[in-house]
Amino acid sequence: MYEPPIDFQIAGREGEARTGALITRRGVIETPVFMPVGTAGTVKGIRFEELESPDLDARIILGNTYHLWLRPGIETIRACGGLHKFIGWDRAMLTDSGGFQVWSLGALRKITEEGTEFRSHIDGSLCFLSPEVSMEVQTVLGAEIAMAFDECAPGEATRDEARRSMELTLRWAKRSKDAFEKLQRGVLPLPLGEGGKQALFGIVQGASHLDLRRESLERTVEIGFDGYAIGGLSVGEEKHVMMEVIEDIAPRMPADKPRYLMGVGTPEDLIEAVARGVDMFDCVLPTRNGRNGQAFTSRGKLNIKNARHALDQKPLDESCQCSVCRRHTRAFIRHLYLSGEMLASILLTHHNLAFFLDTMKRVRQAIRSGQFAKFRREFTEQLHCGLG
Amino acid sequence: MYEPPIDFQIAGREGEARTGALITRRGVIETPVFMPVGTAGTVKGIRFEELESPDLDARIILGNTYHLWLRPGIETIRACGGLHKFIGWDRAMLTDSGGFQVWSLGALRKITEEGTEFRSHIDGSLCFLSPEVSMEVQTVLGAEIAMAFDECAPGEATRDEARRSMELTLRWAKRSKDAFEKLQRGVLPLPLGEGGKQALFGIVQGASHLDLRRESLERTVEIGFDGYAIGGLSVGEEKHVMMEVIEDIAPRMPADKPRYLMGVGTPEDLIEAVARGVDMFDCVLPTRNGRNGQAFTSRGKLNIKNARHALDQKPLDESCQCSVCRRHTRAFIRHLYLSGEMLASILLTHHNLAFFLDTMKRVRQAIRSGQFAKFRREFTEQLHCGLG
Repeated sequence: MYEPPIDFQIAGREGEARTGALITRRGVIETPVFMPVGTAGTVKGIRFEELESPDLDARIILGNTYHLWLRPGIETIRACGGLHKFIGWDRAMLTDSGGFQVWSLGALRKITEEGTEFRSHIDGSLCFLSPEVSMEVQTVLGAEIAMAFDECAPGEATRDEARRSMELTLRWAKRSKDAFEKLQRGVLPLPLGEGGKQALFGIVQGASHLDLRRESLERTVEIGFDGYAIGGLSVGEEKHVMMEVIEDIAPRMPADKPRYLMGVGTPEDLIEAVARGVDMFDCVLPTRNGRNGQAFTSRGKLNIKNARHALDQKPLDESCQCSVCRRHTRAFIRHLYLSGEMLASILLTHHNLAFFLDTMKRVRQAIRSGQFAKFRREFTEQLHCGLG
Repeated sequence: MYEPPIDFQIAGREGEARTGALITRRGVIETPVFMPVGTAGTVKGIRFEELESPDLDARIILGNTYHLWLRPGIETIRACGGLHKFIGWDRAMLTDSGGFQVWSLGALRKITEEGTEFRSHIDGSLCFLSPEVSMEVQTVLGAEIAMAFDECAPGEATRDEARRSMELTLRWAKRSKDAFEKLQRGVLPLPLGEGGKQALFGIVQGASHLDLRRESLERTVEIGFDGYAIGGLSVGEEKHVMMEVIEDIAPRMPADKPRYLMGVGTPEDLIEAVARGVDMFDCVLPTRNGRNGQAFTSRGKLNIKNARHALDQKPLDESCQCSVCRRHTRAFIRHLYLSGEMLASILLTHHNLAFFLDTMKRVRQAIRSGQFAKFRREFTEQLHCGLG
C-alpha cells in the first residue's frame, strides 16, 4: 500500500478524549483541531495573516473540491501551481471530495453507480463528478489530506435508503482509493509532478442506524485509509441522535488514526464529540454566523443586532483576549452591522474563529493535564449562564 | 481668539510644494498627507490594525458628520465617550461638517439662510443641519480637526449662482466659528467636558470662478481659522478647471496654516496638487474603487475583472511592498472578485490605501531632499507606461 506522508501520534488521553499531533510536511497540527472552512480558496471575511496570527494560529484549513472545480476551475489552479500556491497559504489543508456539496444540490443532481451528474450552481452547465474525477481534482489541489468521494443519506433516511447509500459509498470508497493511489504513485500522470505527498481519509456513512454505521466503519477500515471521518451528521437529524452515533462509532474507529467529524458544530458539540474520541472538526458556523451578526462567546451566543447592545461598552466576550475583544465594543460592532459595513463581518468572523480555536487549545491543554472532565463541566455551565 | 491645540510646521519646500508636520495631541501627522475616509466610523473593508501597520501607517482618518449623526446618532456616540472611543481609534481624526453630504442629496434637501432641511437617506425622516448643529455634533464627535459648515456649488455654476452660494458659505463660516468657539471655551455646555481640544478649518468656495475663489479665500481668512480647505472641486467640472483653481488659490492660502483639498483625487491629482502647494487630501477612490475591483498601481489602474489576469502570477503592483502584493497574485484576487468573496474587497482596499499612503510618503521624502520635480516627472511617466 501507498505510504502516506502524514503521521499521527497520541500524546495524552482522558476517558475517550485524546490529544495528539498530526504531522504533515506543512507543519504539526495539534489535535483535537478545528479547521476553518475555506470554501472557494478563502476563509470568508478573514485574511490569511489573521489565520496565522497568535489569536487564531489555524494550522489547517479546508478547501472545497466542488466550488474550486467549478470556479476558477482546475486548469487555472493547475497553471497556478496547485491550491497552496494559488491562494498563498503555506500551512496544511484538507480538501473535501465534493460528494457532500453535490448531494446538497438536491433536485439539481442525479446519482448513478458511476457518479453524480449535476448542474453547476454558477452557470447551470452540466457537470459530472465521480470518485475518479474527485481524486484527480484533489490531486491537482494538492492538499495534505484528501477525502474519499461519498454519498450522504438524509438524517431521516430509512434503513433501506441508508443501506443503499452506504453500499454505494463503500464501492466509491474503493474506487477513490484505487484512483488516488495510482495518482500518488505516478501510475496515472501527475498534474503537478508532486505525487506521494497526500493522505486519503475514508468516510463512514449509515445515517442514524447504528448497525449500518458499524458495518460502514468496519468495511471502510478493510479498504484501508490514512484517517477516518464520520460523514452524514448534522444534516437534519436531532442532536441527541447525532451524539448517539458519535458515541457509538468514534471509540470503535482505529485508535492510531485521526478521527474526523465532518461539518460539526457548535462549541458545545465540539467538546461533546471530543469527549467521545473525535480528533478533527470543520464547520462554517463561526464564519457564516459571524457574517449574520452572531458571536459565539464563553457565555453563549450573542446577537449583535439586539437593541440591548446599543450602548454596550463591553467586548463581544469579556473572557476573550482576541484583537477584536481587546479593541472594540458591542455598541460599535452593532453600529457596523446595522450600517451594513463589511467591518462587522470581518470583526465577528475574527472573534468567532478565535473563540473556536482557543476553545480547542484549552481542550488540548485540559486533556494533557488530566483536567478535561472538569473543563467540560465548567465550559458547559458557563455557556448557559447568560451574557454579561 | 480661541487657541487651537494643533501646530503646523513647514520643514521643506520645493517650488510651491511643501513638506512639514501637523502636530496634534494624538500624534504628529507629516504632510503632505492623505487621509483615508471613514464615513460611518470605519474605513470600509479594512481593520484599524491594518491602518496602523507599517504598510499604511495612516496618521489621520476622516469621519462623516452627516452619516454618524443619522446613525448611530449623536446620543449613542456621546454615551460611548466620543468618536475615538466609540470606534477604538487613538490616532488623529478630521470630521467634515455634513455640508457636502447634505448638498449631495440634491432634490431631497432644501437650503435656507438658517441651514439645510433634508430627508434622511436611511429612514426618510426630516432632519435639519445648520452651522450651529454641525458644530455641536462635531464637538461630540471630538475629532482633532472640525470643518466649518459650508454650501457647495455645482462645477458648472454660473457666476451668480456661485456668488450666492459663496456668500452663504461665508455667513455660515462666521456662524460656525462663533458656535465652535463657544463650545470649545465652555460658554455653551460641553458634551464631554473636553473643550479646547479641537481645531476648526474654513472652506473656500466659488466654483470655477477664480475671482470669486480669491474673494472667498480673502474673506474666510478674515474670519480666521486654524487651517483652510478648498471645497467644491471634483464635483463635475473638467480636470483642467480643477487644476486651474488649485494653481491659482493654493499659493494664496496662508503659508503658515495647513491647506486641505477636499475630496481629491487620483494619485496623479495628489501629486499635481502638492506641486501647487496643497498639504492635505481625502478621497474615497482607494476604498471605493477597491471594492469595485480596481487597483491603483505605479503603472496605472488595473481592472482585476479583466480576463488577461486569469492566470496572472504577478502581484497587483510589482513595485509595491504591501502585504497583499508580497503574498497574493492577480489571478487569485481576480478569482475572489468573480466569486463575490469579501476578501477581494479587503485585499484591493489594503493595497490601494498602501499605494496612496506610500506615494505621499515618497512625495514628502522627495520634497525634503529637493527631488520633487524629478519624482513628479518619473511618477507621472511610469503611470502611463502600461501594466506589466
